[in-house]
Amino acid sequence: MTEIFNALFAPASVAVIGASDNPNKVGGRPIHYMRHFGYTGQVFPVNPGRTTIQGYRAYPTLQDIGTTPDAVVIAVSGDATLEQVRQCAQAGVKAAVIMASGFAETGEAGRQRQQQLVDAANAGGMRLVGPNAQGTASFASGAVLNFSTMFMEVAPQDGPIAIISQSGAASVMPYALLRQAGLGVRYLVATGNDADLDACAMTAAVAADPDIRLILVYLESITDPAALARAAAVARERGASIVAIKAGSSQHGARAAASHTGALVGNDAAIDAFLARHGIWRAGDIGELVRAVPLYLQGRAPGQGRTVVMSHSGAVGVMAADLAERHALPLTVLQPSTLDRLGTILPEFGTANNPLDMTAALLGKGDMFPRVLDTLGADPQADMIMVGIPVAGPGYDVEALASDAAAFSSRLGKPLVASAPQQSVRDVFVRHGVPTFVTEADAVAALAQYAGHARLLASAGFPEPHPLSPESLNGTGLQDEARSLSLLAEAGVPVVPYRFCANAEEAVAAFAALGGGAVVVKGCAAEVPHKSEHGLVHLRLTDAASVAQAAEACLDTLRSLGVANPRVIVAAMVKGRHEFALGVSVDPVFGPLVMIGEGGTLLELRKDVVTLLAPFDVADVKAACARLRLAPLFDGYRDIPALDLDALAASAVALGNWALRHRDAVTSVDINPLMVMAAGDGVLAVDAVVELQGA
Amino acid sequence: MTEIFNALFAPASVAVIGASDNPNKVGGRPIHYMRHFGYTGQVFPVNPGRTTIQGYRAYPTLQDIGTTPDAVVIAVSGDATLEQVRQCAQAGVKAAVIMASGFAETGEAGRQRQQQLVDAANAGGMRLVGPNAQGTASFASGAVLNFSTMFMEVAPQDGPIAIISQSGAASVMPYALLRQAGLGVRYLVATGNDADLDACAMTAAVAADPDIRLILVYLESITDPAALARAAAVARERGASIVAIKAGSSQHGARAAASHTGALVGNDAAIDAFLARHGIWRAGDIGELVRAVPLYLQGRAPGQGRTVVMSHSGAVGVMAADLAERHALPLTVLQPSTLDRLGTILPEFGTANNPLDMTAALLGKGDMFPRVLDTLGADPQADMIMVGIPVAGPGYDVEALASDAAAFSSRLGKPLVASAPQQSVRDVFVRHGVPTFVTEADAVAALAQYAGHARLLASAGFPEPHPLSPESLNGTGLQDEARSLSLLAEAGVPVVPYRFCANAEEAVAAFAALGGGAVVVKGCAAEVPHKSEHGLVHLRLTDAASVAQAAEACLDTLRSLGVANPRVIVAAMVKGRHEFALGVSVDPVFGPLVMIGEGGTLLELRKDVVTLLAPFDVADVKAACARLRLAPLFDGYRDIPALDLDALAASAVALGNWALRHRDAVTSVDINPLMVMAAGDGVLAVDAVVELQGA
Repeated sequence: MTEIFNALFAPASVAVIGASDNPNKVGGRPIHYMRHFGYTGQVFPVNPGRTTIQGYRAYPTLQDIGTTPDAVVIAVSGDATLEQVRQCAQAGVKAAVIMASGFAETGEAGRQRQQQLVDAANAGGMRLVGPNAQGTASFASGAVLNFSTMFMEVAPQDGPIAIISQSGAASVMPYALLRQAGLGVRYLVATGNDADLDACAMTAAVAADPDIRLILVYLESITDPAALARAAAVARERGASIVAIKAGSSQHGARAAASHTGALVGNDAAIDAFLARHGIWRAGDIGELVRAVPLYLQGRAPGQGRTVVMSHSGAVGVMAADLAERHALPLTVLQPSTLDRLGTILPEFGTANNPLDMTAALLGKGDMFPRVLDTLGADPQADMIMVGIPVAGPGYDVEALASDAAAFSSRLGKPLVASAPQQSVRDVFVRHGVPTFVTEADAVAALAQYAGHARLLASAGFPEPHPLSPESLNGTGLQDEARSLSLLAEAGVPVVPYRFCANAEEAVAAFAALGGGAVVVKGCAAEVPHKSEHGLVHLRLTDAASVAQAAEACLDTLRSLGVANPRVIVAAMVKGRHEFALGVSVDPVFGPLVMIGEGGTLLELRKDVVTLLAPFDVADVKAACARLRLAPLFDGYRDIPALDLDALAASAVALGNWALRHRDAVTSVDINPLMVMAAGDGVLAVDAVVELQGA
Repeated sequence: MTEIFNALFAPASVAVIGASDNPNKVGGRPIHYMRHFGYTGQVFPVNPGRTTIQGYRAYPTLQDIGTTPDAVVIAVSGDATLEQVRQCAQAGVKAAVIMASGFAETGEAGRQRQQQLVDAANAGGMRLVGPNAQGTASFASGAVLNFSTMFMEVAPQDGPIAIISQSGAASVMPYALLRQAGLGVRYLVATGNDADLDACAMTAAVAADPDIRLILVYLESITDPAALARAAAVARERGASIVAIKAGSSQHGARAAASHTGALVGNDAAIDAFLARHGIWRAGDIGELVRAVPLYLQGRAPGQGRTVVMSHSGAVGVMAADLAERHALPLTVLQPSTLDRLGTILPEFGTANNPLDMTAALLGKGDMFPRVLDTLGADPQADMIMVGIPVAGPGYDVEALASDAAAFSSRLGKPLVASAPQQSVRDVFVRHGVPTFVTEADAVAALAQYAGHARLLASAGFPEPHPLSPESLNGTGLQDEARSLSLLAEAGVPVVPYRFCANAEEAVAAFAALGGGAVVVKGCAAEVPHKSEHGLVHLRLTDAASVAQAAEACLDTLRSLGVANPRVIVAAMVKGRHEFALGVSVDPVFGPLVMIGEGGTLLELRKDVVTLLAPFDVADVKAACARLRLAPLFDGYRDIPALDLDALAASAVALGNWALRHRDAVTSVDINPLMVMAAGDGVLAVDAVVELQGA
């Protein structure tokens, strides 16, 4: 961990400016917490009105301390903050936590005041957390530069978990749930306005601590994606995991966008793609954020996630199977040899199966449960085990069940979870270190997340920085069809053979040059993107006279629409096996997202699309396309031959790379339809609109 | 409640055959429970080997008791059960609970032994619960004819809830969760094999108890839909609610079916439709089964479910908004007058909004929280309130918050829930009677369910019994296209003008009779349902010679395929605005399900379909069609004019009613495509296959 983060998490000394003797004031809590949570460094309360505060000697000003503290908590009001920041920076303080609110969260004037804080701090080489921050805490060192009420109520304990949040409330909610479940938390950071050291940087910092196994993150905006990506890489390298909430998806879902791709993709898909790429699991709420924590902390390899469900109740098995399907958790198909062995242990079962209903056999009969576990453990397809205990009481040796389950999981290194509605039963399993849940639903969801996250991590990667193209793209705004097709051809997307013509004679010549087969004549003007509404599309023309007539009609119409320099496109008529759409929406933060899906007029209604964050490769496209509802078309469906997925994937990769090179110039691309032919016959972009940035 | 159910739930006397002195044996537990849970009737243990059992006088046989008990628990082994059932029935016992297993759940021989039990019981006018039943319990009377271990561990308490389950484990899991949350349960019934009195009948019985506000049901099969429908009607009449799990959806999802409609609809859609029709909310797991219980027990009207979220944390509001969108819970758009009033109470808020971030204002400042609540309560669009308390401690008057919240909800009759991760905070709210949740996700999900269930109940109804048609349908199995179209025309679905022809001359005559416009000629044979694969579809024929040629070709092909009596259909070519599909799958238990959705070859990939359980009306169809992805087509989309939803709905209603009249004869109907024209221009079935039962 760098010097700055050492200053925050393991400082030799901490000053609290605006210190209070009242442990329930913002300026009193950090002092109270450091006193009670084992901080062994020096604490310097700064308050001109008192000589001692909470038993510590108090100083009128920072200068009066006589030494420079590593870190400072600035707990004065917003107006007084700037001057304190200046003094701290001048004194050589390394890092300060700014608790006052009234900055960027209040509007533009506040944002300017906030920038002054940052400028003042950085001028002296000091870094800031906040403003409007609840602050940082390390329960390893006891350095609690944090004013949350929560630690008064729910006592901290060091552990292998870090919580990094832009919101104070969202930092202490998971903390409360974890601590009440007996789990320890080392770092708890609420960064507030993220003016300088933001939540992404904090995540990167705690990811470097070798004791941290799991980082829980709450974000409302991803201010520094590169830092978060670095954090993820560091964590991944060490085998630690990151689970993150990115809240605010409902508001941001409806990103205003001129392009169909932009409308379909939205900002949330970019966040999904970004987090997935870096192996960060996205949780939907605080419950999901903490649900699988015991599995992460044990860190047993989930294999391919194939799960055996066992219970002494058939109903638990039936419900678990329903839930497994809902969460896409695969149930193990037990091997014949496993079934044979189970048959010798459980002779009364004609057909042992998964879910495995052990009925009352789970109760007595001595070593039956561990023998069944061992048999399952020997099956190479049994990656994880779920044991459902819907009821227990006299006659049940819960202690033995829990002990056997824990020993099995530890010996074989396979994840095992239990579910039980009775608190008394759960307590026993938890005491034996078994991840334990109230309901089958929570158990199945946790297993599905844990196995899914492992898959995500296996495919996660940090792509090489992609250089911008040295050549810029001319033009701004919507490009006409001819320019759009030409740009796509440059990008490496096959486009329909076409000619760009200024009059009927050129159109007739184009018809001949294209071979004399059926053509389409379309009016072409950037100002008129919706051609068919103006009668500017003439299909299936098979003779020169019709081509000339159509060209004249289009040019007339364009003139009447006020187009100064009207043109037509003459293009070969092509009929693909199915109409797809391929598009790009360049997210200002995450870069180009490529959308692939069913095309045609109903694109935005059918919404059968997948999105990929550039760069990506052909295998990524194929994996994504397998999630389309229309995916069976790629293998052939009914009398439709297999479609050319290779060509579709190659075009998507080319388009993604082109958009990445030109991410400073491109806003969006809509190719619809992209005609996809039978396997081996390629794809052809038939109609396209490229939108460049600016005007 | 009828005599039978009185005998089970409030018997004057209970005999236990196979009684044990050991309270942890199956034959000992009911006696132990009745002794300890306040049963005031007579208990007669029957066991030839003992004179007293658990302090009660024991009898060698039922006859020795000298009086006929109202109810009997038969806790002997499977082999001995039949003789005991005979004796009880002969003695005039009203109802018996059969605990032994080894009957229908083991296979056909067991099923026959089970039927002998039922026959023996019914011969004497006795009714059975079980076999393989954990049994019945009323904690109002203390009559516990139930051997579950659970009541040893989690003590019962009478309350307004009934739990009816086919599974023992699934009966005690919700019991444990409710009791641990301090909620009382009156009835707990696990019916086992449902040979006689089944879970549906039990639900109907407890629905009649005026003290029961909520019935939680677990089913793996709906053995008696009519009884369940009656139960729902009785409950609805009294304002009581039923929430049910129907487990096993994963296994039953893939119902083998010849028809596309059958493949798309499956059995699970029938269950969804049946439960929805009768106002029964379907829960997916035990957690969902109990989640909203406190809201049901309070029974405050949820109005239209429009919800105000308030918290002292912005993050809670952001997450709650995300969650509300996920659960389709509408957030209240606060009226300007409400916002004005909030502005005077919370002057520091420039723009009060929903979710309402009260920041630290929620803490002190005396009456601010109740004033805000009252202001919200006065807004007619604020139907429900959610208060998120992510953290509390010194400085928070949680007692006052909870008390104010409870008083508001009670006074205005509006549902209000709280969420808090801290157990100590939840305890205070629960003590004040506020439905309280650990996470915002649970709170939002519970509100969404509660409001959604109220909507379901408002539209629930028990349709009149629909008589079967006196006229039967001739034929079995797949019908050829001509017969299929003819049946649909009889049903009231508009079909394309067509003629059925045996030779080329008839085909040419048909072409003329149809007006001489473009026609399609198709080979027609029930044996060859996939016409296009055999080149049996000739489109867009516009002259007599082509028609004759196509007809000959089809007839030749059919002959070569071994069709004895080949025919062709000559039909007018019609082009609709969009291709839909309309189908029927007759569920053997629930009757005809009508499917409506996008048609075409890709029907089963796109899966943009809705299903309705017949009978239904035009308004039902329109409400269902509004859930299609293609729903915007009905209002006009881009350059596609509004489609004729009225005609589509009328056809669906006609088809549903026809299928209902002929539910004993019809297996399935696939109409694909059903051409839907522009509004006012109707619909036309262009191709159809009707499958009749048999052969």
